[in-house]
Amino acid sequence: MEAIRTRTLPPEFIAREAQQERPPDLTSRLNTWYARLAAANPAADIEAGESCGARLIIPDDPEWPTQLDQLGMSRPLGLWAHGTADLRFSCLKSVAVVGARAATSYGSHVAAEFGIGLSESGWTVVSGGAFGVDGAAHKGALAAGSPTVVVLACGVDVCYPSSHDTLFAAVRKQGVVISECPPGVHPTRARFLIRNRLIAALSRGTVVVEAAVRSGALNTATHALSLNRHLGAVPGPITSSMSAGCHRLLRERKAVCVTSPEDMIDLVGVLGEDLASQTRAPIFPRDKLNEPTKRVLDAVPARGGAGPASIAVAAGVGLDATLSALGGLAAAGYIERTTNGWRLRKQTTAYRKAPDSAALAPPPTPEPDPTDTPPAPDDFPTPEIERRPHTVSERDDFLRG
Amino acid sequence: MEAIRTRTLPPEFIAREAQQERPPDLTSRLNTWYARLAAANPAADIEAGESCGARLIIPDDPEWPTQLDQLGMSRPLGLWAHGTADLRFSCLKSVAVVGARAATSYGSHVAAEFGIGLSESGWTVVSGGAFGVDGAAHKGALAAGSPTVVVLACGVDVCYPSSHDTLFAAVRKQGVVISECPPGVHPTRARFLIRNRLIAALSRGTVVVEAAVRSGALNTATHALSLNRHLGAVPGPITSSMSAGCHRLLRERKAVCVTSPEDMIDLVGVLGEDLASQTRAPIFPRDKLNEPTKRVLDAVPARGGAGPASIAVAAGVGLDATLSALGGLAAAGYIERTTNGWRLRKQTTAYRKAPDSAALAPPPTPEPDPTDTPPAPDDFPTPEIERRPHTVSERDDFLRG
Repeated sequence: MEAIRTRTLPPEFIAREAQQERPPDLTSRLNTWYARLAAANPAADIEAGESCGARLIIPDDPEWPTQLDQLGMSRPLGLWAHGTADLRFSCLKSVAVVGARAATSYGSHVAAEFGIGLSESGWTVVSGGAFGVDGAAHKGALAAGSPTVVVLACGVDVCYPSSHDTLFAAVRKQGVVISECPPGVHPTRARFLIRNRLIAALSRGTVVVEAAVRSGALNTATHALSLNRHLGAVPGPITSSMSAGCHRLLRERKAVCVTSPEDMIDLVGVLGEDLASQTRAPIFPRDKLNEPTKRVLDAVPARGGAGPASIAVAAGVGLDATLSALGGLAAAGYIERTTNGWRLRKQTTAYRKAPDSAALAPPPTPEPDPTDTPPAPDDFPTPEIERRPHTVSERDDFLRG
Repeated sequence: MEAIRTRTLPPEFIAREAQQERPPDLTSRLNTWYARLAAANPAADIEAGESCGARLIIPDDPEWPTQLDQLGMSRPLGLWAHGTADLRFSCLKSVAVVGARAATSYGSHVAAEFGIGLSESGWTVVSGGAFGVDGAAHKGALAAGSPTVVVLACGVDVCYPSSHDTLFAAVRKQGVVISECPPGVHPTRARFLIRNRLIAALSRGTVVVEAAVRSGALNTATHALSLNRHLGAVPGPITSSMSAGCHRLLRERKAVCVTSPEDMIDLVGVLGEDLASQTRAPIFPRDKLNEPTKRVLDAVPARGGAGPASIAVAAGVGLDATLSALGGLAAAGYIERTTNGWRLRKQTTAYRKAPDSAALAPPPTPEPDPTDTPPAPDDFPTPEIERRPHTVSERDDFLRG
């Protein structure tokens, strides 16, 4: 500062810069800075900020988010904040939801869902103030009642885009709008890119909802990775160019595939505290049958009918065990006896109309006959190849007539 | 075989089995096998196969695909093949395209695109014969002219599903239909699972196009992984349950994100021979401007106008370099001079109506003025935070009035 004001550089700074491969023309740069200094008026900035209701937060303030210190040399000198929420407290558990301005309806839907889901779980959304993903994520978060943080690339008193004035007003009531630019500054291309590092640094992790291969959201993603924050990407149709950037992050294994707010909380959350429940495959009543009973059920024909002996051969289960399993399956409503032998019952009645009826309950495990010893499920070859070292079934198929 | 026929087990086999934690009831299992042996008629199988036009391929035959030997104990004893294509040769460069029977229109579209793309690049599609992804992949592959391999879970003379008879007939003409089941055998649940290991083992890699969290395609994926084959998964909308299985494979980093046939060939192909071209971000004319010229362009207002001095301060570029850049930008049609100073030209004229006109060509690099030394682009701080250790722009924004 002093160096710029007096237009003389400290000798040690000149010496350090001269060691670089291509030493910059320091005099020319100093002159540029001097010209900019003349236009600066910090006192007027403070006044303008106060008059619009914003506050200036600087490092060591109680509201300063200390995670920004990880930015090192590029840590902002201060942040203008406008809104009721405490910035530091709001960002303790926060996720950056970023993505394309020109989001598809799918992207906007997903961003809003993430805003709602994160907010409902007590997580703060951090994002820019743009149309598309940014706006949808904030709207979702506001609807679910948690604070949300808008990081602008212009002064906090400048509404860009201008039609987001009601959104920003709502954020100021429930969350906070911040910027490192002083009041009155308008956004430029460069300021958006510089701003993105704040979005990545404020939050515990960043999720990219939709991004083309060339997108500002990928710039935020790069910042998140360089700060060792978690990075998630939401997949989308491969036919959509607005998901191509997300897919590239996934393909290069830079980002984790995130399909729900819970997935993202699982990624950034504290183990044991925020662990998401894993998606489970549905369990069908049939799964609860033991292995020989399942094999018998598979061997019962859907049409016509078959006798117990041929079912036993087809299933590869002993005759006594087969008879026992057939009884159990019939009692549970899986199969029925006709004049031609056993056949499957039509599923329409048993499965669709009365899904909770007793007919759906797993059939009782066939009573072991003392004269026969039905094999325990684990002894029996299962269809999974990993658990079945012998190729009994293939050999069997191969030999059967 | 002999042991089953005579119903006596070799003593060393009994001893080996008895060492297991839970020794199976060998006598009961032997009786089961004996009952099945009675139903087997290999001579009739061969005759039935030949009468329908199928051939039996066994290990050491010239047509035997030796990659199946990696299945170890679960290698099939033989394969019935029906079709004109040579099985071994067809599978040298092959990809398994698998997925849900109940595919969405998105899944069917993607499967067909993969079939076409792989086939056009000389790769063979290996898949089952089901509706949905299997059928769409085969149809795409047939349309593009390469052989395709259908692996059935029933005899090659059994058409399951029956409405795929014309598809299978077309595959027999251009590719080959195979099965390890002898002719006449009908599919069962267990046979589908056993069949899946063949699809994984025949191909160099497997791509899952669409799969619910509980899907046979994930069984094939597990086989591919256990055989150390490449595994790809096609992402889809997170709102679609038919993509949930693919997303889980991606999230658990078991599969690579695959968004095109080229991506898949890149994964399974030989380095240097099959390398796919990487998706490139589009390049805009603006990208070709040098760094100070870009900064000057960013500092020119869209409305009203600004003088060179204030533009120079806003851009952080020396006045002489700014004047030179303004001239170049005006000549290239980016900006225009009004009575209020310089402002951006409306993009509609320059960009949309005449995208190839001279106005779009990058402006000439401003001639360096001998009296001023404009900084070389690399010396200048760029908006990317990684390349800019000093927070010049932030400090600048912070100080500006």
